[in-house]
Amino acid sequence: MRSLRSATTLIRRTHSAPFHKSASRGYELIDGTAIAAAVRQEIKDEVATMKSTHGIVPGLAVVLVGSRKDSQAYVTMKKKACLAAGFDSMETTLPEDCTQEELMGVVDAYGADPKCHGILVQLPLPDHIDEEFVLDRISLEKDVDGFHTLNVGRLNKKGKLAPTSVACTPFGCVELLVRSGVQIEGANAVVVGRSNIVGMPVARLLQDLNATVTVCHSKTKDLPAAVRNADIVVAAIGRAEMIKKEWVKPGAVVIDVGINAVDDPTKKKGYKLVGDVAFDEVKDVASKITPVPGGVGPMTIAMLLQNTLLRAKAAVNEE
Amino acid sequence: MRSLRSATTLIRRTHSAPFHKSASRGYELIDGTAIAAAVRQEIKDEVATMKSTHGIVPGLAVVLVGSRKDSQAYVTMKKKACLAAGFDSMETTLPEDCTQEELMGVVDAYGADPKCHGILVQLPLPDHIDEEFVLDRISLEKDVDGFHTLNVGRLNKKGKLAPTSVACTPFGCVELLVRSGVQIEGANAVVVGRSNIVGMPVARLLQDLNATVTVCHSKTKDLPAAVRNADIVVAAIGRAEMIKKEWVKPGAVVIDVGINAVDDPTKKKGYKLVGDVAFDEVKDVASKITPVPGGVGPMTIAMLLQNTLLRAKAAVNEE
Repeated sequence: MRSLRSATTLIRRTHSAPFHKSASRGYELIDGTAIAAAVRQEIKDEVATMKSTHGIVPGLAVVLVGSRKDSQAYVTMKKKACLAAGFDSMETTLPEDCTQEELMGVVDAYGADPKCHGILVQLPLPDHIDEEFVLDRISLEKDVDGFHTLNVGRLNKKGKLAPTSVACTPFGCVELLVRSGVQIEGANAVVVGRSNIVGMPVARLLQDLNATVTVCHSKTKDLPAAVRNADIVVAAIGRAEMIKKEWVKPGAVVIDVGINAVDDPTKKKGYKLVGDVAFDEVKDVASKITPVPGGVGPMTIAMLLQNTLLRAKAAVNEE
Repeated sequence: MRSLRSATTLIRRTHSAPFHKSASRGYELIDGTAIAAAVRQEIKDEVATMKSTHGIVPGLAVVLVGSRKDSQAYVTMKKKACLAAGFDSMETTLPEDCTQEELMGVVDAYGADPKCHGILVQLPLPDHIDEEFVLDRISLEKDVDGFHTLNVGRLNKKGKLAPTSVACTPFGCVELLVRSGVQIEGANAVVVGRSNIVGMPVARLLQDLNATVTVCHSKTKDLPAAVRNADIVVAAIGRAEMIKKEWVKPGAVVIDVGINAVDDPTKKKGYKLVGDVAFDEVKDVASKITPVPGGVGPMTIAMLLQNTLLRAKAAVNEE
């Protein structure tokens, strides 16, 4: 009952939605950067209150194995976001060739640390480490990524025990919809992609909010037809600009989870980031749409902070 | 990887499907009674081999709390099915007012008994007992109902660890489809109903077999339209004859999980059992359809035996 209910309560609150509509275009941009900033400001305010009332500061530990550039960049972003929200930020970096036991030792140490309310093991892990085993080692109380098998189980059944956390990216997708005033109950939602970390949990969250959900994937026989049936499209395939204008029902809401690098010689870096949706054409039929970058991306870290705050609150309540 | 893979392997085997087609009708009846009998015969043969090769007899323990007539009837059926397949059948009945601790004691005792390979706690339990807590007390090794939260989690993510068992009724639905030669991969499957014990797990199993799955429920805004899109319909709503002919696409395959008692003064008991599908009219458009009774019903017990056999095999392999 604890944190998904809390989370659902949070996302059910109505917020002034920072979206942009101009006379020159028919669609509204769902501005993830602005919504994430609003979420982060709310969290910061709550943290200040928590600190003054209970003397508690939420603490997030991030564990990185190896030296992948992208993982390092994510860890740095998470650390900065923690500090900006007034959290304690803890970090451990282990070498690429560390043993699973060493990694477990770090997870267990944060598990025993009362100042740490959330543990995030940055994925992917090197091949010699059993990812599922490591993720299941994090206690439910500190599983701010929501990847523990018990949390996946709780998410996927109705019961007295809600997940302690819901995976950050799916949670962020739903938060974007709710804060943009999108009607989820009764809507036909089509999720394209069935990954553990996005497609499956976002489908389940939308169903919990009473959407009628269809999950599409590589074996779907007529993907354009399936997508055309959607009032809400969530694209999480990982293929650049795959979803075209003709696939989208006029007036549909489009959430683009994809982040794909495509060559672009006009850019200094030689590439640009695009989503799974052909934004430039789909915007002409969608009623609301997220850009890439600046849509779902910024929400992931905001929801990580949200999850950590909820876990810190739960720890206060259990004291 | 263990038993869902084994289960999937089992259900992917091609079997001669005992269905009935006559010149006088366009549909084929999916005969659950005959298919369940075939499954049970295969299990019986395997048990005989197991006994002679390893000296192992699969053992199933059924725990009943209270004296509900329907629960007693189910327990009796399960016990008979066990004995017919050559299993050891164990049974404990506790009074309606037993404590949760007493029930746990029984679960733990079967958990420690090497002759017991599966534990089934008959549901529903009295209100004063925490059902989720009890179900999660059964070890994964003996969770032949597949209701343990970790098994639900494993079912709902892709990973190295498959569930040790899959819930019997959904498993039975998929077995009926496979043994009836129904193409699941690429099919549009519509599951009506989103319960923990049928709707959700059957949706997940069909998706694992590469169907494109839509889950409908009481908040679905145009249920007939959604069902009309289905190549495969699984009805698990619990409302007598709700699904009508006009809702079903010609040629669709219809699996009816519902068992509803409706008044019928022509019957000695004063009622008859019907499904969630208006069989008499839907049969005229469906290509294949299960009857009620005699469709999914008999499969539930067959799959319970299958799950117990798989757990006994796993125990042999772990020795």
